[in-house]
Amino acid sequence: MDFDALFNAQLSQLKQDGNYRYFAELERKCGKFPRAANHAEDGVRDVTVWCSNDYLGMGQHPKVIGAMCEAVERTGTGAGGTRNISGTNHDHLLLERELADLHGKESALLFTSGYVSNWAALSTLGSRLKDCVILSDAGNHASMIEGIRHSRANKVIWKHNDVHDLEMKLRCLPADVPKIVAFESVYSMDGDIAPIKEIVEVAEKYGAMTYLDEVHAVGMYGPRGGGVSEREGLADRITLIEGTLGKAYGVVGGYITGSAALCDFIRSFASGFIFTTALPPAVAAAARTSIAYLKESEIERAQQRRQVERLRAALDREGIPHMENDSHIVPVMIGDPVKTRMLADYLMREWDIYVQPINYPTVPKGTERLRFTPSPLHTDADIDHLINALKVLWRQCALAHAVA
Amino acid sequence: MDFDALFNAQLSQLKQDGNYRYFAELERKCGKFPRAANHAEDGVRDVTVWCSNDYLGMGQHPKVIGAMCEAVERTGTGAGGTRNISGTNHDHLLLERELADLHGKESALLFTSGYVSNWAALSTLGSRLKDCVILSDAGNHASMIEGIRHSRANKVIWKHNDVHDLEMKLRCLPADVPKIVAFESVYSMDGDIAPIKEIVEVAEKYGAMTYLDEVHAVGMYGPRGGGVSEREGLADRITLIEGTLGKAYGVVGGYITGSAALCDFIRSFASGFIFTTALPPAVAAAARTSIAYLKESEIERAQQRRQVERLRAALDREGIPHMENDSHIVPVMIGDPVKTRMLADYLMREWDIYVQPINYPTVPKGTERLRFTPSPLHTDADIDHLINALKVLWRQCALAHAVA
Repeated sequence: MDFDALFNAQLSQLKQDGNYRYFAELERKCGKFPRAANHAEDGVRDVTVWCSNDYLGMGQHPKVIGAMCEAVERTGTGAGGTRNISGTNHDHLLLERELADLHGKESALLFTSGYVSNWAALSTLGSRLKDCVILSDAGNHASMIEGIRHSRANKVIWKHNDVHDLEMKLRCLPADVPKIVAFESVYSMDGDIAPIKEIVEVAEKYGAMTYLDEVHAVGMYGPRGGGVSEREGLADRITLIEGTLGKAYGVVGGYITGSAALCDFIRSFASGFIFTTALPPAVAAAARTSIAYLKESEIERAQQRRQVERLRAALDREGIPHMENDSHIVPVMIGDPVKTRMLADYLMREWDIYVQPINYPTVPKGTERLRFTPSPLHTDADIDHLINALKVLWRQCALAHAVA
Repeated sequence: MDFDALFNAQLSQLKQDGNYRYFAELERKCGKFPRAANHAEDGVRDVTVWCSNDYLGMGQHPKVIGAMCEAVERTGTGAGGTRNISGTNHDHLLLERELADLHGKESALLFTSGYVSNWAALSTLGSRLKDCVILSDAGNHASMIEGIRHSRANKVIWKHNDVHDLEMKLRCLPADVPKIVAFESVYSMDGDIAPIKEIVEVAEKYGAMTYLDEVHAVGMYGPRGGGVSEREGLADRITLIEGTLGKAYGVVGGYITGSAALCDFIRSFASGFIFTTALPPAVAAAARTSIAYLKESEIERAQQRRQVERLRAALDREGIPHMENDSHIVPVMIGDPVKTRMLADYLMREWDIYVQPINYPTVPKGTERLRFTPSPLHTDADIDHLINALKVLWRQCALAHAVA
């Protein structure tokens, strides 16, 4: 059987639909963020990255870099095993304590990525709690969807951020089955924020456990970076808070926090936790330094908010349509995969601006977009340069302007 | 609903069965491997680690450490995004080229872990190849089992390492459905090695694709560390070779290699590849250095073989029963979870020897064991010390001696 032909047929279809992905090949350079070298066909050139999830530039913070190198030199480059078989290192436990403290929980549990933490935690909860029903927000991330699917638990999807719909669905379920309300605080592609308080109240009313993904919020929201749930004083009412070390904290890895029993349960039964090599102790040390730093420092968060506001105001001034939200994510809607790619290519080639076109399956078809994530390290001049480029582009392409 | 009570009930059952896992809290110390500090209840003490999957000690090799620190200082601590959205770095592509070369394949694709590479690749192949049947060796790793399960493809389990059974099962399938024969080279818990040539021949006869997990072999087998498939000159006949950067290479991460179309297919459709933050460039740089080093250097492999033989000969001399195999893994069978833990606790407490008790679900119930992995850095004195300890222990516990 010609397997390559089968693969190529599906790849051709992707290309025809405009959904084939071309990765930009970057070289991050310490101290230069948001600048990076881009390896293009016609050579290597510095560009300004406008779509990084290293939201606060902590991946290049001297303290975080120092902590990682110190730990590499102290412990080596890897953990040497699964958490159970020689892979648990002192640095992992220090990080887990730091994470539990960040969210005011009894315990925390590390995973190799945020994707794995969602997938492993939800698939374990859904499969091991008898008759469990998972009520999942329609906008939830792929990792949550796959975890729920893998659990084979009953799944009920409620309308995105719609508490009334959630309550209608909770009301229909038997009182004595375990229920999990799974949702995110900041949704990564639209940047909208969940009505956490209302969701928690409804969940409490029906005795449901709450599962909150804060990956696009930790480090950036709340006085200590504990996420939107910290900012709104709701962390103690949420059963499980999940987060990442790979975005605002600038490293890699994921985690859950919750009661000691909950974390021990996932630790003891989750295949995706048990059967995988632990993160390098040096990754744990770097992440812990980043978290501890952002617990104390408000400068990065304040400057990020300022630059986000500046970019939004400039887009409004120029009549460039962007999605409104209360987060740090600025989506400029295009609505067609081929046009989105064309615009991104042009920005890279002519303006040294890198923003990845966001197409299906990351967003629904017809909602293709450019997604900008201003960081505290984007200067006012960077914003002016981006706005100039978009202005020219909008004129040239005669794209519909938003009504002023 | 009292969720903690539900969790605690299942945890109590685990404890009752003797399958509850206690993690040893270690501190790896550069240059000291296989020594590490163990944080026990009664204080911190150096122990000799006898169960690490840092099989060759490369996680503390000066070149690998140097490469990681250099890259952290050059690029920072994280990738800053998914591979698609600003997270592809030059270091990732260099590593993927190195991996493709290692196995003599057109392409390679990096994942955050070996677990994720198996899970994502098999779930994508199984779900996207219409009517696909996956023929899975009964001894396959949890990550492969979960990937196959998640794909919802038809699954046929063949008897462990039994080519005759595989052929019987292949013969029953329609000629025109895509078939994948999934297996490992070295099985981690028994240490036995698959009859790769016979499996490949049968797969070829029935037009099946071959999927080979070499995680416990890469770096250690074959003249360049390309695994058992390299040693036996069979790599070019295997469709997909999967491996890890977290064991013999001493870092973290997983990968697949194969044709350009195959890798592009997984890259384009695998949720577990698309929706997750890329590995830090510094991890990629460290892994590449380790792979390149072990392509050239034979000393580590030769010394590992010598120490494995030495340990086996000494166990035989003392009549301590261990499982025979042709790999570097030395399982000493105990057959009861409580006894296995008791022995491991005693070795740690009285002899400063750390070997993790291996219980269900890592191995089937009734096959609990101590699993030793001698490295080139375990000295003859380390082996003598271990043998003395086991001798005393065997005498004290009056465990059955193997017939001489």
